[in-house]
Amino acid sequence: MTGGGDSRGPITDPAGVAALLRFSRQRGFAGVAADSTPGFSGKKADGRRAQDDDAGLIRSAQERLHAHALRPEGGRRALILVLQGRDASGKGGIIRHLSGAVGPHGLQTWAFGVPTEEEAAHHFLWRIQRRVPAWGRIAAFDRSQYEDILAVRMHGLAPRSVWEGRYDTIIDFENGLAASGVDVVKVMLTVSQEEQAERLRERITRPDKAWKHAASDLADRRRWHEYTQAFEDVLVRTDSDASPWYVVPSDRKWYARWAVGRILLHHLESMDLDWPAADFDPMAAEAELDAATALIACD
Amino acid sequence: MTGGGDSRGPITDPAGVAALLRFSRQRGFAGVAADSTPGFSGKKADGRRAQDDDAGLIRSAQERLHAHALRPEGGRRALILVLQGRDASGKGGIIRHLSGAVGPHGLQTWAFGVPTEEEAAHHFLWRIQRRVPAWGRIAAFDRSQYEDILAVRMHGLAPRSVWEGRYDTIIDFENGLAASGVDVVKVMLTVSQEEQAERLRERITRPDKAWKHAASDLADRRRWHEYTQAFEDVLVRTDSDASPWYVVPSDRKWYARWAVGRILLHHLESMDLDWPAADFDPMAAEAELDAATALIACD
Repeated sequence: MTGGGDSRGPITDPAGVAALLRFSRQRGFAGVAADSTPGFSGKKADGRRAQDDDAGLIRSAQERLHAHALRPEGGRRALILVLQGRDASGKGGIIRHLSGAVGPHGLQTWAFGVPTEEEAAHHFLWRIQRRVPAWGRIAAFDRSQYEDILAVRMHGLAPRSVWEGRYDTIIDFENGLAASGVDVVKVMLTVSQEEQAERLRERITRPDKAWKHAASDLADRRRWHEYTQAFEDVLVRTDSDASPWYVVPSDRKWYARWAVGRILLHHLESMDLDWPAADFDPMAAEAELDAATALIACD
Repeated sequence: MTGGGDSRGPITDPAGVAALLRFSRQRGFAGVAADSTPGFSGKKADGRRAQDDDAGLIRSAQERLHAHALRPEGGRRALILVLQGRDASGKGGIIRHLSGAVGPHGLQTWAFGVPTEEEAAHHFLWRIQRRVPAWGRIAAFDRSQYEDILAVRMHGLAPRSVWEGRYDTIIDFENGLAASGVDVVKVMLTVSQEEQAERLRERITRPDKAWKHAASDLADRRRWHEYTQAFEDVLVRTDSDASPWYVVPSDRKWYARWAVGRILLHHLESMDLDWPAADFDPMAAEAELDAATALIACD
């Protein structure tokens, strides 16, 4: 322990955090400790402060992305942030945090639950493709195209040959997006058995959480290891440099929120976008502003 | 000045803040001082803290709304928050703040700018009607149906007889929503000439804000008093107890964010929704959770 007031330990830069959390075949999904905090040595209060600090950076990076998209000559870019994870792993809280940082115009959020009748009447990527963000925007996917492998496999909704084929279909889809300027950044949250039990128990016992309880969550929990295997398979088969997977420890909500923010920041910074030059004459515009001010006063 | 650490002065309850800010014909729009802070006696840092405190309350109130909507027997309610105001009055910041509190699932945001080709090919309420939120949700409208009076009037996009007729059309529309369970809460922000000048100047002179600059903002600023009159007319002709207007002073961004949060809180609390009783047996569910836990350990 060092003495002194504000020190919160070294903060790892976005690229460093992303490198630490990038999926690795050697370690696998199961090899990431859900209660660890890679790249962050502080405690909860420090994490909260770091989150607040990052909110401004993330917002500014999204605005640069947007400002570029407004220009006809600008490199047109967008980003999809995929969030997957077990029930109660904290996807919603992460999205809420990012939305507070960026604002809903910059960060559009789409949840992909059980397909609606209309969605089910189309090929599985149809509902995903229509949510690809416009240039300059970020879309957060609360569950995603990967449910069409994971949920379908786990609940036997289609034969193995169907969902097996989707690994490659999804890779092709994501490669096409990346080639067109839409980055796909994928986050798999990992929560421990103990922490999930605590969160599910809250939903059972607290009147203000009961509406979140779903019997299916308990049924899914019984198949913990099967899910682990299904996650491993998705990660191994669909991780790529073009559309990378990250495994984010989520037992500490503050850490998961900070870490996903840093990963997002890393990808936005990697686009290397500057503020575009003004497409107007600032001196003339200021003169016009002053003229308007003088005019109002005379009315 | 009182001494002592944490005191932030008396905080007015949501109903009290709403009452203070409710549009009044006597005072009018122009009679509300843009740099005032009705109902709040603290300073900026206090305002920020109060905002953070309210975030949890707003979120909880929205979750109660949502929990009710999930029940077939539940009273089905939803809410539209309309935000109007001059350029740079801070609509975006307020929405970002609320979105961080509630999350994007609970608060859907729609911006109504210049109508798209598809929108313009329909009657003026078409684009509004399709954004009416689902039961249990809140929709924030960044500009709204009122642009079809304000922008049309100010820019001469249609004859007076057209936009004059829309006051009543909008009142009928809003009455229909209120009668069906969708509250429409309307906020008109007011910013002073001086503060608007400062914010527009930033957009002109700062490289990271230049993308927000629009020459039309300066042209609109020249017509400050005409806009004031147009706002007065909208407020007088479309304020009602069913769909009330509030005039929120917005020179201090922290105040406007806090005040709009309190108004929203007031309307959510007025719905008087409790947490619905669990539709499952908590003891049986807990036993099932424990059984799942035991099962995982054996695998």
